[in-house]
Amino acid sequence: MKITRRDLIKASAATAVWGTFARVTAGFGDSLPSWNEGASKKAILAFVKDTTEKSSSKYVEPKDRVATFDQDGTLWTEHPLYTQAMFALDRLGKMAPQHPEWKETEPFKSVLTGDREAMGKFGEKDWMEIVAVTHAGMGTEEFLALVRPWITTAKAPRFDRLYTDLVYLPMLEVMRYLREKDYRTYIVTGGGQEFVRVYSDPTYGVAPEQVIGSSIVTKYDNSSGKPVLMREPKPFFIDDGPGKAIGINMFIGKRPCAAFGNSDGDRQMLEWTQAGDGGRLMMLVHHDDAMREYAYGPGGGLPDTQVGRFSDELFAAANKNGWIVISMKDDWKRVYSFER
Amino acid sequence: MKITRRDLIKASAATAVWGTFARVTAGFGDSLPSWNEGASKKAILAFVKDTTEKSSSKYVEPKDRVATFDQDGTLWTEHPLYTQAMFALDRLGKMAPQHPEWKETEPFKSVLTGDREAMGKFGEKDWMEIVAVTHAGMGTEEFLALVRPWITTAKAPRFDRLYTDLVYLPMLEVMRYLREKDYRTYIVTGGGQEFVRVYSDPTYGVAPEQVIGSSIVTKYDNSSGKPVLMREPKPFFIDDGPGKAIGINMFIGKRPCAAFGNSDGDRQMLEWTQAGDGGRLMMLVHHDDAMREYAYGPGGGLPDTQVGRFSDELFAAANKNGWIVISMKDDWKRVYSFER
Repeated sequence: MKITRRDLIKASAATAVWGTFARVTAGFGDSLPSWNEGASKKAILAFVKDTTEKSSSKYVEPKDRVATFDQDGTLWTEHPLYTQAMFALDRLGKMAPQHPEWKETEPFKSVLTGDREAMGKFGEKDWMEIVAVTHAGMGTEEFLALVRPWITTAKAPRFDRLYTDLVYLPMLEVMRYLREKDYRTYIVTGGGQEFVRVYSDPTYGVAPEQVIGSSIVTKYDNSSGKPVLMREPKPFFIDDGPGKAIGINMFIGKRPCAAFGNSDGDRQMLEWTQAGDGGRLMMLVHHDDAMREYAYGPGGGLPDTQVGRFSDELFAAANKNGWIVISMKDDWKRVYSFER
Repeated sequence: MKITRRDLIKASAATAVWGTFARVTAGFGDSLPSWNEGASKKAILAFVKDTTEKSSSKYVEPKDRVATFDQDGTLWTEHPLYTQAMFALDRLGKMAPQHPEWKETEPFKSVLTGDREAMGKFGEKDWMEIVAVTHAGMGTEEFLALVRPWITTAKAPRFDRLYTDLVYLPMLEVMRYLREKDYRTYIVTGGGQEFVRVYSDPTYGVAPEQVIGSSIVTKYDNSSGKPVLMREPKPFFIDDGPGKAIGINMFIGKRPCAAFGNSDGDRQMLEWTQAGDGGRLMMLVHHDDAMREYAYGPGGGLPDTQVGRFSDELFAAANKNGWIVISMKDDWKRVYSFER
């Protein structure tokens, strides 16, 4: 749809009430300017139309408009390593002088010597040990005070940009568009809930109370007369895989109408979303753009990875269930907002 | 402040814009009509003024306006027994024909024979066994489908009223008033999160996602092709005592500005609330009105109870910390909305 400046002037002259005019012209704008035309963009627009226009058979009341977004690999770049893991490794380096024993103890030794091959093979136990020393043993506010300066200064090496600059502009547009249509947008991440809450509002426009994530046990301690929630080196809730459906039910108590993910850990969130009635939208970001970002799968014949794995099985499930696979390469006109 | 019909007519004649008039006159209304004049009402009004007027040194941005409310004994009647316990006992009775072995097994035997003395001595283990058979072993949606018809029909014996009729009108007014001033009102209950979410919106105007409560473990099961969250007979999170501070941090990630409770299990919620900066309001409902509701303590020299215990220690903490104790008898003009 094309509208010339002349049309605008004519329209405005004919319209006595400016508010009405603004509302009418708003319909002419493209809410998803960073998306190329295609099936993905079409599906998003159709879903919003179906669920928010009162005349639609799939109309959803505003109070039930919930959309959930995985974070790593869905809203921002997760390669070569999750941002929170980078934070943990940075912090380990800063703490090392006080822990000479780490020079001889795994998994710390591999981190401190920069042994990327060994780190690539870290299992859950290794990461839990790293989380235990870098994320626990302090109060919640002390932890937030460590994350805040890091996230506003640390840079992703390949791009020499803040990690928060590596959010996907097309996904920000989807979130904003949904919120304009009275959807509440939740982040549902395998990452640490407290970590993500530090930057979720300025970065995504998502309030802390709309961030659902993994958490460790906290313990109430009022022994000093000023209560503290002490972070203990013990997992409490793992918001990944089936945990995403469980977390959504626990935190929201409503089933999402739309869910966006990018890896095997998002499968159950999409299944859970799809199992509801009415208009539904399930989408998976496929990282097939080594030029502008990264390319990995192994789904779609791309290199295998342990960070944000999109398996052949997930691809098959997407085909079977009608989930839409977003091709970063083909569907996104721009990936990051700093691109020209 | 008194305003006559004549004043209103004069004012409206003098005011060209009706919207402005409506906004101005709104200030004349009493937002808390069921409260008697006194320290409690004054404290609520002062708190709202302090935290919502931009010129105030204690001004709080709308996004940080959070108020938390315990449910049982704070928002509705909890005596002689918590409503959810009544649901469990009712359900036990309905299930009994299929479980002849319960006639000989405690704690079921005492429930089925109506042995109130034995039931009064039930410990956590007994109640967990009752919860296990009445609240678990089914999917979340199946559970909600049991609660819905019960809560809309079951009646509290003494009043012969729906349990949801036994909400405190003065507290509904506080919640409504806070929401008018852009506060988000959360329920933070030791009761079951899924149970309370069934009726929280119609009863209190609190959306399910703003109900924080105790929960049992749920397990994702997609074996039938339609995913179900199975409720397991195992506690996951106990939202009571220190758990209330932990739950608030976990679910909201923001510290409340105001907290309302009525028993020992609310103490840490009030401590946690008070430990923040700026305008604060901590209040405890004291059940000192045997005539209109119930009278129990033992704080304040009233009869002891295991249901919503308000201990002498809590009374002392309230005095020491400046928490306001609401006297149901003196502060509330009306308790329930069905009173004339």
